[in-house]
Amino acid sequence: MKKNIQPSGTSTPRGMATHLPASALLRRHVQDTVLATFLKWGYREVIPPVFEYLDVLARGLSSTLLEKSYKFVDRDSGRLMLLRPDITPQVARMVAGILSDEPKPLRLCYYGNVFRYEESHAGLEREMFQAGCELAGVASPAADAEIIAVASESIRKFGIKDFKIVISHAGYLSGIVSHLKQSLSGSLPPDSENALRDAISKKDGCRIASVLDNAGVEISVKEGILDVLKLFGSEEVFDRAAGVISNAESNEALQNLKKIYDLLCVYGLKEQVLIDLCEIRGIDYYTGLFFEIFHDGVAYPLGRGGRYNNLIGKFGLDCPSTGFAIDVESIIMAKEKRYGVSLPDESIKYLVFLFNKSMNNSVELSRALRNAGNKVISDTGLETIEMATEYAMNNNIENIVTEGMDDMHFWVIDVKTGKKVHVDRSEFIDSN
Amino acid sequence: MKKNIQPSGTSTPRGMATHLPASALLRRHVQDTVLATFLKWGYREVIPPVFEYLDVLARGLSSTLLEKSYKFVDRDSGRLMLLRPDITPQVARMVAGILSDEPKPLRLCYYGNVFRYEESHAGLEREMFQAGCELAGVASPAADAEIIAVASESIRKFGIKDFKIVISHAGYLSGIVSHLKQSLSGSLPPDSENALRDAISKKDGCRIASVLDNAGVEISVKEGILDVLKLFGSEEVFDRAAGVISNAESNEALQNLKKIYDLLCVYGLKEQVLIDLCEIRGIDYYTGLFFEIFHDGVAYPLGRGGRYNNLIGKFGLDCPSTGFAIDVESIIMAKEKRYGVSLPDESIKYLVFLFNKSMNNSVELSRALRNAGNKVISDTGLETIEMATEYAMNNNIENIVTEGMDDMHFWVIDVKTGKKVHVDRSEFIDSN
Repeated sequence: MKKNIQPSGTSTPRGMATHLPASALLRRHVQDTVLATFLKWGYREVIPPVFEYLDVLARGLSSTLLEKSYKFVDRDSGRLMLLRPDITPQVARMVAGILSDEPKPLRLCYYGNVFRYEESHAGLEREMFQAGCELAGVASPAADAEIIAVASESIRKFGIKDFKIVISHAGYLSGIVSHLKQSLSGSLPPDSENALRDAISKKDGCRIASVLDNAGVEISVKEGILDVLKLFGSEEVFDRAAGVISNAESNEALQNLKKIYDLLCVYGLKEQVLIDLCEIRGIDYYTGLFFEIFHDGVAYPLGRGGRYNNLIGKFGLDCPSTGFAIDVESIIMAKEKRYGVSLPDESIKYLVFLFNKSMNNSVELSRALRNAGNKVISDTGLETIEMATEYAMNNNIENIVTEGMDDMHFWVIDVKTGKKVHVDRSEFIDSN
Repeated sequence: MKKNIQPSGTSTPRGMATHLPASALLRRHVQDTVLATFLKWGYREVIPPVFEYLDVLARGLSSTLLEKSYKFVDRDSGRLMLLRPDITPQVARMVAGILSDEPKPLRLCYYGNVFRYEESHAGLEREMFQAGCELAGVASPAADAEIIAVASESIRKFGIKDFKIVISHAGYLSGIVSHLKQSLSGSLPPDSENALRDAISKKDGCRIASVLDNAGVEISVKEGILDVLKLFGSEEVFDRAAGVISNAESNEALQNLKKIYDLLCVYGLKEQVLIDLCEIRGIDYYTGLFFEIFHDGVAYPLGRGGRYNNLIGKFGLDCPSTGFAIDVESIIMAKEKRYGVSLPDESIKYLVFLFNKSMNNSVELSRALRNAGNKVISDTGLETIEMATEYAMNNNIENIVTEGMDDMHFWVIDVKTGKKVHVDRSEFIDSN
């Protein structure tokens, strides 16, 4: 077995993950953990396809995601296809179509890979695993709170405790901008509106002031908007926010967010929750609550979500909905940074190495040990006990089972210590 | 919630699966069952990427699969990419590259989707789930037998007992063709050779005879080759085959296959195994044993595999290897046809519906019931007990928990029978 070719150039596309056993085991563990949590809350798994028609899925995708999608032409129809950059719009398409008659509330969940073309310098993966839940057909704060609770519990079940949930509400800033327009008799030019949003998203007070000055906004209104930049923190933000702004849409948004916040406290998440009313990311996509879950050690959110009451409508069914997606790579990174990797057990219990005996014995013993729940390798290529021992040491195998003094006995060798125990055949099988 | 758009045209590409909850649950069950079996035999999971550079992966793909692949241009490099039509060559690439220094035997397994452009009339899916194992670094019959044993056990663990394993060997027919060439002083034209193979694969005696007559082959040799068409059946085929043909390569192939067969008998698979020496599908890909697992009710094999000693070499490391892939759709179809669908339990144990009480009670009770291992939905959108009951009936929910006579009691309503039981709060939680 020698290498006879040196690979020329890159052999796999950049950003495409190839997960070796340890890495795959970790991802399998995440998958099992989060899906088990979702199921316990009554969510049912769906598996949407990996690629879809671009014109269909595009209805539910932001222009940024659409731009980052991998596209190709369907040989059948000549239509453009895309590898899904997000699973949420696929679930929305299912809720609006094939599942439209299901009773509401409808709880669905998924685990799958998404594909996004990321710039080289960003260092992001292009194939990422995502897990998430959608709760369709309920517009209540309780539904939004449940979504945050499920997201938090999945992350916690994976072993991460010290995360923060930043909650915001699309209606709050939207109300301010509408109100501002009204106070200017609807004359805020679209450019100024975009500049204002952009400046708020960057928490850039100087620019906000300049945009508002140019638009001829009154000083008192301008100062109110600048005060929004400070609306970040814990519970007291709600009181401050009510003092800063007074218009129907913003007030309603605040009340809605406060109800969700109170429910999150009931869920025991008070310590985790931060309120950020000047957060603007996602404001075009969400119609109410939106949130991101952060961890100190990781640059990207572990999860995000919120209410998008218009999304399912884009696929043909008016239906309120709230949901979230967890980024598997981010939660693995958070776990590794904070707690180190504690993998589920990947060791193999026995290497059955009956070199002088018939194959029958080996097959029979291996079967009995596997039926008892153990991971077992039957030897099929090792020639000596020394080779078997070296192989066991390099492969995380705990014990070697080999011939005993007679047909009724085996030697069981502990690979780490080298300690040998002579065991009775049937007693050994029974003890497993 | 009303439908406001009628979908125009097809909304998902043909052959791309959208799995609803029942179907997804079944696939999840297959995934868990087969992976658990693979792990018990000491195989370690790897997760290769969904798309790869065409020029790299093409080394390990047949021209048929290459033609069926979905291809697109990489924005980064301008190189052609393909959505993987098969996972085995990806594993081979890993064994030859990033895993080349791992001790042998190396046992790897996978579960993932593959993508193949299939003609409309074939009615085949274009996104299919595949699970499989690769055993690299061992050339022995024991390795080949192990691979068949693992494949069979995974299918059996999923609940299918009445399958057939058809084994064959690439060396047997290859030896015949080489021998034929020699007897004709190497003068069998390539066209005749291809025609001969094609005729053998179709078990078309007339055409075989005509090809051999045209090539000027002796009658005794021709009759020998025609006798190969009868080499199908159980154990006695080995004796008949030895009488029909005598050349070194074919003899060696027969002996190898007989050793594998004997080991399969040790594995308890005697009843399942059939021998077919005139099987030619896969003869270009495999270098030794190859096999397919069939079920009466399903047109396509449940699984297939064999020995491909040259595959890993195509990626740069000379290393013998044997393996198999199971087709998830086929095994699900076999299970459904023969035994009906017996899904893992998908019912939800409790709907917690404490409409008059505080959210605290509802959250706390739901948490306690979930921690005890139950699937629980907390009500977030139902207004009356009648709505809750109807919802529970339509959603496979077993019980509704609602307010009792006082704070310390609940009513538990069995949804199917309507029977109500008044339970003590803490006793109820303890009993779960």
